[in-house]
Amino acid sequence: METSVLMSAAELNQLKKAAPMEGVLPVFHERWSPRSFANREVSTELLKKVFEAARWAASSFNEQPWRFLVGQRPDETYKKIFEALNEFNRKWAWRAPVLILGTTKTRFSRDGRDNRVALFDLGAASSYLTLEAAALGLATHQMEGLDTEKVRVSLGIPPDYIMGSTIALGYLGEPAALEDEKLIQREIAPRTRKALGEIALGAWDQPAEI
Amino acid sequence: METSVLMSAAELNQLKKAAPMEGVLPVFHERWSPRSFANREVSTELLKKVFEAARWAASSFNEQPWRFLVGQRPDETYKKIFEALNEFNRKWAWRAPVLILGTTKTRFSRDGRDNRVALFDLGAASSYLTLEAAALGLATHQMEGLDTEKVRVSLGIPPDYIMGSTIALGYLGEPAALEDEKLIQREIAPRTRKALGEIALGAWDQPAEI
Repeated sequence: METSVLMSAAELNQLKKAAPMEGVLPVFHERWSPRSFANREVSTELLKKVFEAARWAASSFNEQPWRFLVGQRPDETYKKIFEALNEFNRKWAWRAPVLILGTTKTRFSRDGRDNRVALFDLGAASSYLTLEAAALGLATHQMEGLDTEKVRVSLGIPPDYIMGSTIALGYLGEPAALEDEKLIQREIAPRTRKALGEIALGAWDQPAEI
Repeated sequence: METSVLMSAAELNQLKKAAPMEGVLPVFHERWSPRSFANREVSTELLKKVFEAARWAASSFNEQPWRFLVGQRPDETYKKIFEALNEFNRKWAWRAPVLILGTTKTRFSRDGRDNRVALFDLGAASSYLTLEAAALGLATHQMEGLDTEKVRVSLGIPPDYIMGSTIALGYLGEPAALEDEKLIQREIAPRTRKALGEIALGAWDQPAEI
């Protein structure tokens, strides 16, 4: 094992932290998506706080289309969510004590009209949830790789709901616990993002004048 | 004009604030979506910060599929976004000095595969943006009501990108400036959300044990 992976959670969080910017909330630069989770349960008191944050996301017509299925190891919901994850995610996600499946209603309750931003609004609520988790010292990792039809059947999710991400939640663990060398290297690699001028545009293919 | 609408931005922000909870980041309870914006420009320095926050959202395979078209009044991009808004939104959104159109790429750059969470990830980045705006003392209001095909043509958005919300951004204005009594009443009404047990489920139609 290389020396580089023998680091504490605090050291790893420091390594993963993006450069701070004055006036920007630190939580945006501090949150990252580990795959190694400590063998430690998360209290219901903390879980309440992350869902309290999710409640307050904005949504079209205040529909709040999001419904989160919360699996707490070793309950049945946890097992059903875990079993629907793809092979790669199952390799590491079993370490997280909480698995949360985000779902969202595709029609407005007020008039039955298609809600073209249902998935967008779920993404918002999931962000509030994961940012609040980071603020509480918890780690989260959202996954796309899931057999959505399998979990729809096993958890009885109605046809007018679609799935967003599955969120692994817990306390950060040691990188070395991942065992797989490739996963360990990804765990300790610095976070990267596109430049501001690639995502804020004044016209298509032209950076914004900011 | 009723006395109730003669309130300062600070008083209105206090009225709109959800009940705080220990350990929950205040910004989740403080952010809300006004329709009255003050006649005051937003500096590029602050705009940089809101997009800096958006950069750091999580995304599937770190694709960062989001691209934001930033219209700053009175530029052409602002006009084109504004003209694609529906009639209701055009009634009030002209007061916001910045209009931001969120778009997202529906295929992964790495392999061309469909990205089922492209809109979800845009929702995340848009949340980071709007939360950071709130932290900076700015107001935002996201809109679904937009002629997406009209704006696709006028702004030259490629076919593999879809639209999320349009974000009106600026400084909070006086409720009375909205003039329309119905809009004013909505502006000063308390924010409402579903109960925790309706959005955090242990099984479908059953609250989570948290």
